[in-house]
Amino acid sequence: MNRINVIGSGRVGAAVAARLRERSVDVDSDDPELVLLCVPDSAIATVAAGIEPGPWVAHVSGGTPLAALAPHERRFSVHPLQTFTRGRGAEQLDGAWAAVTGETPEAVAAATSLAELLGLRPFELDDSSRTLYHAGAVFASNYVVTLQRAASLLFEAAGAPPAALEPLMRRTIENGFELTGPIARGDWVIVNAHRNAIRRELPTLDHLYETLAGATLALAT
Amino acid sequence: MNRINVIGSGRVGAAVAARLRERSVDVDSDDPELVLLCVPDSAIATVAAGIEPGPWVAHVSGGTPLAALAPHERRFSVHPLQTFTRGRGAEQLDGAWAAVTGETPEAVAAATSLAELLGLRPFELDDSSRTLYHAGAVFASNYVVTLQRAASLLFEAAGAPPAALEPLMRRTIENGFELTGPIARGDWVIVNAHRNAIRRELPTLDHLYETLAGATLALAT
Repeated sequence: MNRINVIGSGRVGAAVAARLRERSVDVDSDDPELVLLCVPDSAIATVAAGIEPGPWVAHVSGGTPLAALAPHERRFSVHPLQTFTRGRGAEQLDGAWAAVTGETPEAVAAATSLAELLGLRPFELDDSSRTLYHAGAVFASNYVVTLQRAASLLFEAAGAPPAALEPLMRRTIENGFELTGPIARGDWVIVNAHRNAIRRELPTLDHLYETLAGATLALAT
Repeated sequence: MNRINVIGSGRVGAAVAARLRERSVDVDSDDPELVLLCVPDSAIATVAAGIEPGPWVAHVSGGTPLAALAPHERRFSVHPLQTFTRGRGAEQLDGAWAAVTGETPEAVAAATSLAELLGLRPFELDDSSRTLYHAGAVFASNYVVTLQRAASLLFEAAGAPPAALEPLMRRTIENGFELTGPIARGDWVIVNAHRNAIRRELPTLDHLYETLAGATLALAT
């Protein structure tokens, strides 16, 4: 594809348009082969409905079904499985995977081709599995932020520098998510001491600590 | 210090002894300046009680107070804030921070000196804050493993490759833990869709998803 109009210039739209320009794609054509919606989930249906039928119409959402692209039938989705920030550009797409979804072999082929043009590693995702997949992405990104915030609060309360957490978090990933620490060792004396200290000093984190301890035991040991 | 006997050859003890050997420290001396206990938390008091008084006695535990080193008074702790695996060596210590704790200026100086010898970046931690600090480390390492397991279960149920999660988790850290995704956008339609899909397909994860969504709203937005 050589003519792809990108609608939306948020975090994802800006990175996607920058990458397409790097690839010499015309992103502002009067006769686009594809109109790519990089708009908030809640705006997809309205924006899609306003596009003159003819070109492929696609979205980059993780959680929204293809039906939101009605009335277009030549439609697909490419969801870059990545978190984007405004301070970076097209290189944010490098190394990331992408969920591609289409209802026909042609649509899947078009989605795969766009993912590859963007520098993403595509895998096929069924439209009906989109919500479950997107919930997984929330665990792997948004909730990692939440853990870092909780850990930082505990470090601040203890007088320890939150910056010290980062090498630990990186190595946990590098080591293939191997579980170490008190729960891996079955050391419930330490776990109970943690809960008592949290209840005393930062009680708002008690439920979170307990829920995660239970989930760790169930899922990771 | 040139003579440091390391007791314990688990994950941490093996990496610490390897680093000390790299630094030409005698780790098997008849007259050690320091005996460094790299044993499980539950064994520290017993092992410490069996050591002839004289040398410094220290432990590398995150959660255990210095009192466990009784009857020794020349005592301290250096806790490498890192997760260790058996397949790697001394280089695991590089880039990690370390909590150093002592009850006298001499003990803090000895602890700091050991941390630097090991290649760690020391920060001082009060003995009474040790449990709170260690609970923070659990959030930042063990619970990251739990999130990855939960996300992988959701990906498997959706037919998506769990390996695709890793670049997302790494970038979340690289981007300074900037929150993106549905909770950052206040998109509760998507969050409710996630919960409905999880309840239907993987109900054991519902409580975890809900607890983390609430904590994300409270801590990270």
